[in-house]
Amino acid sequence: MVIVMKPQCSKEDIAGVENFLKKLNLGVHISEGSERTIIGVIGDKRLLADAPLELMSGVDRIVHIVEPYKLAGRTFKPENSVIRAANAEIGGNRIAVIAGPCAVESEEQIISTARFLKEQGVTFLRGGAYKPRTSPYSFQGLEEGGLRILAQARKETGLPVVTEAVSTKSLELAAKYADVIQIGARNMQNFNLLQEVGRMKVPVILKRGLSATIEEWLSAAEYIMNEGNYNIILCERGIRTFETYTRNTLDLSSIPAVKELSHLPIIADPSHGTGRWRLVTPMSRAAIAAGADGLLVEVHPCPKEALSDGPQSLNFDSFAGLMKDIHKIAAIVGREI
Amino acid sequence: MVIVMKPQCSKEDIAGVENFLKKLNLGVHISEGSERTIIGVIGDKRLLADAPLELMSGVDRIVHIVEPYKLAGRTFKPENSVIRAANAEIGGNRIAVIAGPCAVESEEQIISTARFLKEQGVTFLRGGAYKPRTSPYSFQGLEEGGLRILAQARKETGLPVVTEAVSTKSLELAAKYADVIQIGARNMQNFNLLQEVGRMKVPVILKRGLSATIEEWLSAAEYIMNEGNYNIILCERGIRTFETYTRNTLDLSSIPAVKELSHLPIIADPSHGTGRWRLVTPMSRAAIAAGADGLLVEVHPCPKEALSDGPQSLNFDSFAGLMKDIHKIAAIVGREI
Amino acid sequence: MVIVMKPQCSKEDIAGVENFLKKLNLGVHISEGSERTIIGVIGDKRLLADAPLELMSGVDRIVHIVEPYKLAGRTFKPENSVIRAANAEIGGNRIAVIAGPCAVESEEQIISTARFLKEQGVTFLRGGAYKPRTSPYSFQGLEEGGLRILAQARKETGLPVVTEAVSTKSLELAAKYADVIQIGARNMQNFNLLQEVGRMKVPVILKRGLSATIEEWLSAAEYIMNEGNYNIILCERGIRTFETYTRNTLDLSSIPAVKELSHLPIIADPSHGTGRWRLVTPMSRAAIAAGADGLLVEVHPCPKEALSDGPQSLNFDSFAGLMKDIHKIAAIVGREI
Amino acid sequence: MVIVMKPQCSKEDIAGVENFLKKLNLGVHISEGSERTIIGVIGDKRLLADAPLELMSGVDRIVHIVEPYKLAGRTFKPENSVIRAANAEIGGNRIAVIAGPCAVESEEQIISTARFLKEQGVTFLRGGAYKPRTSPYSFQGLEEGGLRILAQARKETGLPVVTEAVSTKSLELAAKYADVIQIGARNMQNFNLLQEVGRMKVPVILKRGLSATIEEWLSAAEYIMNEGNYNIILCERGIRTFETYTRNTLDLSSIPAVKELSHLPIIADPSHGTGRWRLVTPMSRAAIAAGADGLLVEVHPCPKEALSDGPQSLNFDSFAGLMKDIHKIAAIVGREI
Repeated sequence: MVIVMKPQCSKEDIAGVENFLKKLNLGVHISEGSERTIIGVIGDKRLLADAPLELMSGVDRIVHIVEPYKLAGRTFKPENSVIRAANAEIGGNRIAVIAGPCAVESEEQIISTARFLKEQGVTFLRGGAYKPRTSPYSFQGLEEGGLRILAQARKETGLPVVTEAVSTKSLELAAKYADVIQIGARNMQNFNLLQEVGRMKVPVILKRGLSATIEEWLSAAEYIMNEGNYNIILCERGIRTFETYTRNTLDLSSIPAVKELSHLPIIADPSHGTGRWRLVTPMSRAAIAAGADGLLVEVHPCPKEALSDGPQSLNFDSFAGLMKDIHKIAAIVGREI
Repeated sequence: MVIVMKPQCSKEDIAGVENFLKKLNLGVHISEGSERTIIGVIGDKRLLADAPLELMSGVDRIVHIVEPYKLAGRTFKPENSVIRAANAEIGGNRIAVIAGPCAVESEEQIISTARFLKEQGVTFLRGGAYKPRTSPYSFQGLEEGGLRILAQARKETGLPVVTEAVSTKSLELAAKYADVIQIGARNMQNFNLLQEVGRMKVPVILKRGLSATIEEWLSAAEYIMNEGNYNIILCERGIRTFETYTRNTLDLSSIPAVKELSHLPIIADPSHGTGRWRLVTPMSRAAIAAGADGLLVEVHPCPKEALSDGPQSLNFDSFAGLMKDIHKIAAIVGREI
Repeated sequence: MVIVMKPQCSKEDIAGVENFLKKLNLGVHISEGSERTIIGVIGDKRLLADAPLELMSGVDRIVHIVEPYKLAGRTFKPENSVIRAANAEIGGNRIAVIAGPCAVESEEQIISTARFLKEQGVTFLRGGAYKPRTSPYSFQGLEEGGLRILAQARKETGLPVVTEAVSTKSLELAAKYADVIQIGARNMQNFNLLQEVGRMKVPVILKRGLSATIEEWLSAAEYIMNEGNYNIILCERGIRTFETYTRNTLDLSSIPAVKELSHLPIIADPSHGTGRWRLVTPMSRAAIAAGADGLLVEVHPCPKEALSDGPQSLNFDSFAGLMKDIHKIAAIVGREI
Repeated sequence: MVIVMKPQCSKEDIAGVENFLKKLNLGVHISEGSERTIIGVIGDKRLLADAPLELMSGVDRIVHIVEPYKLAGRTFKPENSVIRAANAEIGGNRIAVIAGPCAVESEEQIISTARFLKEQGVTFLRGGAYKPRTSPYSFQGLEEGGLRILAQARKETGLPVVTEAVSTKSLELAAKYADVIQIGARNMQNFNLLQEVGRMKVPVILKRGLSATIEEWLSAAEYIMNEGNYNIILCERGIRTFETYTRNTLDLSSIPAVKELSHLPIIADPSHGTGRWRLVTPMSRAAIAAGADGLLVEVHPCPKEALSDGPQSLNFDSFAGLMKDIHKIAAIVGREI
């Protein structure tokens, strides 16, 4: 941590900060510049707790040098983490493809989709039984009935299941039926939910919040890891910007950025990231080319009849085309599917 | 709802959409323009559920004409709502001032603050017992112990209490001890929490999400109202933008905008909105001048020692100055404190 | 400047940076923390020119401690600047009101507006003769003919004139006819235009760019000042965010922020800032309450017939109401009109 | 265009709008919904000029159905445009690679870079002689001297040259020496410059503005095309968002989006898009995978000594690796280099 003093600060101001830090047994390095004095702080910053040093006399601002997360960082664990879920892995050499409809609507819809996806060689079936919707008047999901249908599809096809939890209660149920729990973008800073899923051992897909920086996203992962659950897969799903043509702005540069900062695997969701099915295949190719460990794609047997997110869902034909493209791109980046 | 057809769509495409809508007993108005055909849909749009009309052949896009919320809108209730909480009101002629420290730290801190605020004529005491913090290593609040201290302060001063709930469990406890529940920015789309507080009768301060449009914010209010709780106070607390000098960008234009769109009262939080205590007083004046029904301000007996949000907290002297300014501005906009 | 080294950097890396800096006669302070080494750089940073220190072995990142502008900063000039233009001042005790239509459309429109504004006690007449429009098919302004009409209005009413320049040619003409030149938001980083206006002595209103941070805005002012023209008035006119209800997001917190960082006067433009005339009066009140030195407001004798920006223009009655409100707010913040 | 009336509008309001439109010889379709009346307008909207219909009694808002650009749109020209520049093409089957240093610094730097790039098979040499820099104290370019060096490099290697123009004067000079003119992000809405380059025949690379929507970007292209110059190449270079880890947020979804909306070729600039050289190669792969017609990449013989943008420049080894990757990705999307 570096404390930047104001240009006009007094010697007493500097001494005041120095004494405060020394009382906490923190090391102090004072560096008098031509325009500013800066004070480097050495030692365990947790001793400072949340002390608002900005308010001490003569202090202009604080610059944090060390990132706020630890367990999620590459410094803590230099090699890539590989997350195991059922019979599959995410973060290893194989690209993981997680596909299925936005919402579980009926047994027929899920079973037919799962069979098709199994043939296509996907890794996981996804489907939402609890849907966080902007309007209370939109379809909210089949809840436990939907989870049962997903479990049935797994039984028939062997595909492990990913589903979203939105609350304590849905988390308990989802963990009972599914192999991987998804924490959605709107819950990325629902710290209570993060802690609860952190106390489980279930693998977690942690979506990036709509307005979350990469640092905040890794800090959200830290919440889960700090409770003991290290099985985290990050998912870039687009951030909110001023652009309105796409539903969100899919920030693919977060993929190589996360690879630098963290050991956790990262996948991309081009369906929510763009909100337009025509953009899903090119952006899926781009995500794999950028180094993503997998994809999360919305597929529906008949997008026109989907109860949720139809405009961004691929039909079976389009998805088969996507899989072909991905196979080729994977080879170029030294991966396989 | 207006369906905009593609420039090159066929007569069959138009007929296809028309027939689909008529089957649902919806009225149809077709308007052939020089470049585009547009189709107006008349009747109860809920019959459409979430049908993805964008995917029908020849359809370019859908334009929604009616806002997605109803109970929260001015059309539903033209006159301003006045929310009663304990012995106070928000949304009437009096400006409500809600003040106190970010976090409850100790009995002494809260009682001394409450006594000072009572003298200053504030309407509510605020203090957080459950703190949503970006890092798991930051102070997370005293939990039920903090709530008890707030209740004690109310007993001694008569000031009703506002506190934040972050989960089902904290909501139950907060509702037991406090007069008004705050739903924070990070939980604005925690729909499960919104529904739970919607089933209570307790007044709710609903903060705007970091990246929420006004429409999404009013839709979040709709979630609460749809469960039966109409006692909602909206709180503008800044949105996330590219600017980094301030912690958030306090969007004061949302105040007159919400006054046009909704009957619900709206207050402003210049402490979180700016993150800098020197900006809190000018932005408080500005909020009242813009038409806010109240303020939510962080005050701490000694901001330098605050465990949370010290840099944006006012000390007692600064707060007393703010109250003087607000009194004068209130008079100009035809209000009192 | 602080150089943050990577956690795993070697002693040679640190020595490499140290030697590089010493060769440039810069002072070096090395501070070995528990997790990171940081290197403080002391002396004239211009010696570094734009050397990309980030690329030296072992360097993680550079933290700039001193702001990139100098002449525009409070450190350079602690007292407020008061800009004189014709018979008026901006930045002193009087609030400056600059009003008029977005575009000059006809002599009749401008003369009648100017007479009305003169009666209302405004300080400057504004009107655009060169209009930067998003579409090439929109009305682009009357050019020199428009400037002549403005000069005519000044002659008849005595009101000094503000008008926008968008290019070298329009700058020369505008400076010939007008008292103050406006540089619009889209040209805030048209560095060539900034330098040209910097070589003149004419007062300049420098609007904030749509996506400019406060630091970039002050750096744009520095471009003008670096050429010798210190007569700059900053104008907050809203930034681009994800919110679509308003045309821009008027960032009123930039007003007290600029007052801290700079000695230059700052005014607000609630017409472009909101894009909706109903929000103009409340946001004008808010701007003055926040400490603005003036307002720039669009007024049109008949907004329904305006060729540009009608929806955000006030008619005469609404503007008269605004002036009354502003008079009262000014008194509270110790100013007059 | 659709005019949405207010819920409580009167019959007179509707008749007022109808009469106004009919006087202009525009067709009118009135559609009375259950909650709102909407009015479709048929005919040449230019007859409306910029009439602010929003201000007519009873009108709530206007929804534009037809995009504001015409010449730049796919409807106007369904097949892809291929832009010819010197001996090269952009937008055809071959991927165009435009590479070189951010700024021209010396003859030696440019000639050695050009020779290397020629060997690598790039299509164009780039280098800036006029640099738009945020601070007036940063290196501003060698101006005409730099252009002469670029021309010299072309003579020696045969590589056609791309360089940026920032003003009328630099445009004239740049057009004299270079094969393609770049209009930078900060000048995307410098409409005067767009019109001037529109009156030339030189191919133009039009970078997306920092806060420009795709629609505004295509409208900027329309400014150039409206003057007669159809030789436009769009360049995605990242937009400004709240994320600070990257310099900008490279919006790769704009590539397939522009391909849907426009016939113009589009390339990507991952150097400015990310600001970090380690991200340039993965994002280059991603851009080509998403369908880009080319890349604009910063390459420097010794990035550590670059006078501008060193941290985002590739050295020769890294660039050679990038070219290998791009060759392979191009094949997968049916392109070649």
